[in-house]
Amino acid sequence: MKLKPLCDRVVIKMVEAEETTASGIILTASAQEKPQVAEIIEVGPGGVVDGKEIKMEVQKGQKVITGKYTGTEVKLDGEKYIIVRQSDILAIVE
Amino acid sequence: MKLKPLCDRVVIKMVEAEETTASGIILTASAQEKPQVAEIIEVGPGGVVDGKEIKMEVQKGQKVITGKYTGTEVKLDGEKYIIVRQSDILAIVE
Amino acid sequence: MKLKPLCDRVVIKMVEAEETTASGIILTASAQEKPQVAEIIEVGPGGVVDGKEIKMEVQKGQKVITGKYTGTEVKLDGEKYIIVRQSDILAIVE
Amino acid sequence: MKLKPLCDRVVIKMVEAEETTASGIILTASAQEKPQVAEIIEVGPGGVVDGKEIKMEVQKGQKVITGKYTGTEVKLDGEKYIIVRQSDILAIVE
Amino acid sequence: MKLKPLCDRVVIKMVEAEETTASGIILTASAQEKPQVAEIIEVGPGGVVDGKEIKMEVQKGQKVITGKYTGTEVKLDGEKYIIVRQSDILAIVE
Amino acid sequence: MKLKPLCDRVVIKMVEAEETTASGIILTASAQEKPQVAEIIEVGPGGVVDGKEIKMEVQKGQKVITGKYTGTEVKLDGEKYIIVRQSDILAIVE
Amino acid sequence: MKLKPLCDRVVIKMVEAEETTASGIILTASAQEKPQVAEIIEVGPGGVVDGKEIKMEVQKGQKVITGKYTGTEVKLDGEKYIIVRQSDILAIVE
Repeated sequence: MKLKPLCDRVVIKMVEAEETTASGIILTASAQEKPQVAEIIEVGPGGVVDGKEIKMEVQKGQKVITGKYTGTEVKLDGEKYIIVRQSDILAIVE
Repeated sequence: MKLKPLCDRVVIKMVEAEETTASGIILTASAQEKPQVAEIIEVGPGGVVDGKEIKMEVQKGQKVITGKYTGTEVKLDGEKYIIVRQSDILAIVE
Repeated sequence: MKLKPLCDRVVIKMVEAEETTASGIILTASAQEKPQVAEIIEVGPGGVVDGKEIKMEVQKGQKVITGKYTGTEVKLDGEKYIIVRQSDILAIVE
Repeated sequence: MKLKPLCDRVVIKMVEAEETTASGIILTASAQEKPQVAEIIEVGPGGVVDGKEIKMEVQKGQKVITGKYTGTEVKLDGEKYIIVRQSDILAIVE
Repeated sequence: MKLKPLCDRVVIKMVEAEETTASGIILTASAQEKPQVAEIIEVGPGGVVDGKEIKMEVQKGQKVITGKYTGTEVKLDGEKYIIVRQSDILAIVE
Repeated sequence: MKLKPLCDRVVIKMVEAEETTASGIILTASAQEKPQVAEIIEVGPGGVVDGKEIKMEVQKGQKVITGKYTGTEVKLDGEKYIIVRQSDILAIVE
Repeated sequence: MKLKPLCDRVVIKMVEAEETTASGIILTASAQEKPQVAEIIEVGPGGVVDGKEIKMEVQKGQKVITGKYTGTEVKLDGEKYIIVRQSDILAIVE
C-alpha cells in the first residue's frame, strides 16, 4: 500500500530522535510550532492551489525541516507518515 | 435517489473501521482534524470557485484520506455520505 | 407577491420533515452546520460577486442540500423561504 | 436636504411594521442578521470597490430585503434612513 | 500649519452638534459605528492602495457622513481634525 | 551606524513632546491607535509588497503623522527610531 | 551539515547581546514583537510565494533587524539558527 499525495502535498516520515542527536541537530521552536527533521517519502504532482500554479521544488529522500504540528499523521502498514503542503517545509538539511 | 455534488464537491463514504484495520491502516491526527479513509462515491463537475477554474483530479471508486470533521454528513437510503471539497482530500491510498 | 433574488442568491423552501422521512433521507451534520433538503423557488440572475463572474448552475424546482444556518429566513404570504448564495448549495438530490 | 450615497452605497428607508403586516410579510432571521423590508430612496453611482467595478442593479422606489443590523442609520429632517452597500441587499420584493 | 493627507486619505472636521441640530440632522448608529456630519478640509491625491488605483471622488468643503470611530483624531492649532480613508465616507449631505 | 529600511519601510524618529506643544500640535486618538508627529529619517527603496509595486511618496526630513503603536522601535547609538511601512503614515504636517 | 532555506526563506543567527551592546544598539519593541540584530547565514533562492514572484534583496553576511518571535529556531552542530521569511526582515544595519 502506498500514499499518493494530491496537488502540492508531500508525504514525510520523521527521522528518529536518536538519529537526530547523532547528527548533531537539536531542534527547538518558538511559540506553538515545534520544528523537526523529516525525510520526504512521496511528493505530489503540484498543480493549481487557490488559482496559482505550484511547482514542486523538493524531492523524495531529502531531509527537511518542518513544523511539528503541521500536517496530518497517517499510519500505514505500521509506519507513521505525515502529509504536509510543500509550503510548510522550511529548509532542506544537507 | 442520488446525490449530485455541485462544482468542486465530492461525495465520499467512509470505509468501515474493521476494513481499515484489515488493510493495515490506522489513522491518527494532530490537533482537531482526525483523518480517515473514505471511498469516493460521486465527483462534482468542477468549475469556477472564487473566480478560479477547478479541475477535478479524483475519481469515483478511489480510496482517499481526508479530515474527520471536514464536510457535511448526509444519510440517504440508509447509507451515510459526506460531502467535501476536492481540496479537503489529502492523498489517495493505492 | 414574489421574492426576486439579486445576483448569485437563490430563494429556497425547506422540504417538510415528514416528506424528508418518506423519501428516506435523514440528515445529520458535523459542527455548527446542520444540512437539510430544500426546494429551489427562485434563482438570481448571477453576475459579478467580488469582481468574479458567477454563472447560475441550479434551477427552479431542484431539490438541494444546504446548511441549516445558512442564509436569511423570509416569511411571505404565510410561507417561509430562505435566501442563500448559490455557493451555499452543496449537492442536488435526484 | 438630501443624502447622496457614494460609490456602491444605497440609502433605504424601512417600511413600517404595520405596512409590512398588511402586505402579509413577516420576517424572521437566523443568527444575528434580522431581515426587513425597506424602500430604496437613493442609489449611489457605483464605481470601483476594492479595485472591482460595481454596477448598480437596484433602483429608487424598489422594495428590498436586507439585514436588520446592516448599514448605518441616519436621521434627516425627521426621517430615519439607512445607508447600506448594494451587496447587503438580498432580494427585491415584487 | 497644514495637514496634507497621503494617498486616499481625507482630513475632515466634525460639524458642531448645535449646527447639526439646526439643520435638522440627528444621527444615530447601529452597533459600534456612530455616524456624524463632517466637513471635508483636505483631500489626498489618491493613488494605489493595495495595488488598486483609487480616484478621489470627494471635494474640499463637502458635508459628509462617516462613522464616529473611524479614522484618527489630530489637533492642530487648536482645531480637531480626523483623518479617514475615502472609503470610510458613506454619503454626501446636500 | 545607520538603519537601511527594506522595501516600503520608513525609519522615523518621534518629535519630542515639548517641540510638539510649541508648534501647537496636540494629538489625541480614537481607540487603540494613538497618533504622533515624527520626522522621517530614512526611506526604503520601495518595491514589490504582496505582489504589488509600491512607490515611495514620502521623503527624508518630512514631519508625518502615524499611529503610536505602529511599527517596531529600535535604539541606535542612543537614539530611538521606529520602523513603519509607508502605508502607516497618515499625513504630512506642513 | 548545512541548512538550505526554501523559496523566500532566510537563515539568520542572532548577534550576541554583548556584541549588540558594544556596537551601541539597544533594541526595544512595541507590543508582542521584540526586534533584534541578527546576521544572515543563508538566503533562499526566492521564487513564487502565493502566486507572486519574490526576488531576494538581502545577502549572506548582512546584519539585519527582525522580530524576536518571528521564524523557527533550529540548532545545528551546536549553533542556534532562525529561519524567517525575507518579508520579516525590517532593515539592514550598516
